Amino acid sequence: MQKKKAVILLSGGLDSTTILAYAKSEGFEVHALSFLYGQRHDTELEASKRVAGYFGVKHHKVIQIDLRAFGGSALTADIEVPKGRDEAEMSGEIPITYVPARNTIFLSFALAYAEVNGATDIFIGVNAIDYSGYPDCRPEYIAAYEHMANLATKAGVEGGRQLKIQTPLLHLKKSEIIQMGLDLGVDYAITSSCYDPDEDGRACGVCDACHLRLKGFAALGKDDPAAYQG
Amino acid sequence: MQKKKAVILLSGGLDSTTILAYAKSEGFEVHALSFLYGQRHDTELEASKRVAGYFGVKHHKVIQIDLRAFGGSALTADIEVPKGRDEAEMSGEIPITYVPARNTIFLSFALAYAEVNGATDIFIGVNAIDYSGYPDCRPEYIAAYEHMANLATKAGVEGGRQLKIQTPLLHLKKSEIIQMGLDLGVDYAITSSCYDPDEDGRACGVCDACHLRLKGFAALGKDDPAAYQG
Repeated sequence: MQKKKAVILLSGGLDSTTILAYAKSEGFEVHALSFLYGQRHDTELEASKRVAGYFGVKHHKVIQIDLRAFGGSALTADIEVPKGRDEAEMSGEIPITYVPARNTIFLSFALAYAEVNGATDIFIGVNAIDYSGYPDCRPEYIAAYEHMANLATKAGVEGGRQLKIQTPLLHLKKSEIIQMGLDLGVDYAITSSCYDPDEDGRACGVCDACHLRLKGFAALGKDDPAAYQG
Repeated sequence: MQKKKAVILLSGGLDSTTILAYAKSEGFEVHALSFLYGQRHDTELEASKRVAGYFGVKHHKVIQIDLRAFGGSALTADIEVPKGRDEAEMSGEIPITYVPARNTIFLSFALAYAEVNGATDIFIGVNAIDYSGYPDCRPEYIAAYEHMANLATKAGVEGGRQLKIQTPLLHLKKSEIIQMGLDLGVDYAITSSCYDPDEDGRACGVCDACHLRLKGFAALGKDDPAAYQG
């Protein structure tokens, strides 16, 4: 029997690596999709290549797009990445690291990929708990995207396969995500989450992404195997 | 009073040029957005630059993306563009010139642009009559996109401005679109619609896009002022 195909949005961070492992465990043939989008470092891309190799994905496509053309985020423009904040400081506002329409753009490329390769599922590692400030990480957004996607494509129109946007991490805490990944055999040493790594790709340990990740490992009583500066 | 801003998806063809003229006539400050997306010719981009200059748009951004990475369309891959077909042959199937998820990708970049520059409206020249075969040109698709877009962005989440996807051509015949443009002062000589122009940018006259365009002018008893081969 032919395997069902899935497109996985893969950044090489903790979350997207975990969903890749999950999709494989569910029996999908995995087609990974990563982006070069003018982020200030290539560490993310290197990590996504390591992860794709580790899991032996069927195909790994890298798309170059230029979100810098629009500016508006600390991750793509020259605005300082916030550091040393706790969750109270992170919550209740839309973070400066939010990239305009990023998930919408990423999902749209995944939709094109799925239409061409016949994938029935798109996996995205969004999370409504740790990143509640991002509008495009909320369940109602994902549901609206899936509805739109099924009106956008040949498959949807011709009444064939219906596309599913899968978000297995949506309601999990960071520690639960890590536990899921460890149970699935993920080696988190090869992943990279930091917003501001050094030239060798080592994490800063103090940006929002590092803070949440370290706290997740701590809650499990484990050390994060990734490389940190200093 | 400050003008309302609009993002216009501008290919430099007949339809998108008409919506640009329409948006200006409605009092919008126009921010045009064009794409280099691996189509087989640059004629489209040259036309979009001419049109943006003609109408003196506020900004014209050109985004390079690579839809060829996915293949699947005569407009981006090495598949022959169909020629000499009448409407009966064009209808009832999804055309080979359909680019996977193209409008979804284009609208997603427009959404990012609108979020950054504060535009309240996105104009797209889709048409449900002449191109009924394209799933992402249908009213229900546009409505679903608008709903998703308002869940995707800061503005939508914070209860501020609601984004509108404007499709003034949706239910017009080609001849009606041309009449609208002529009434708004469009010079169609500077536009380019052809799927397969020659090196000098002259239209082939026989592809689906040329056929519909020429028929539209003929219905008005007018000559198309654009340059044709031979």
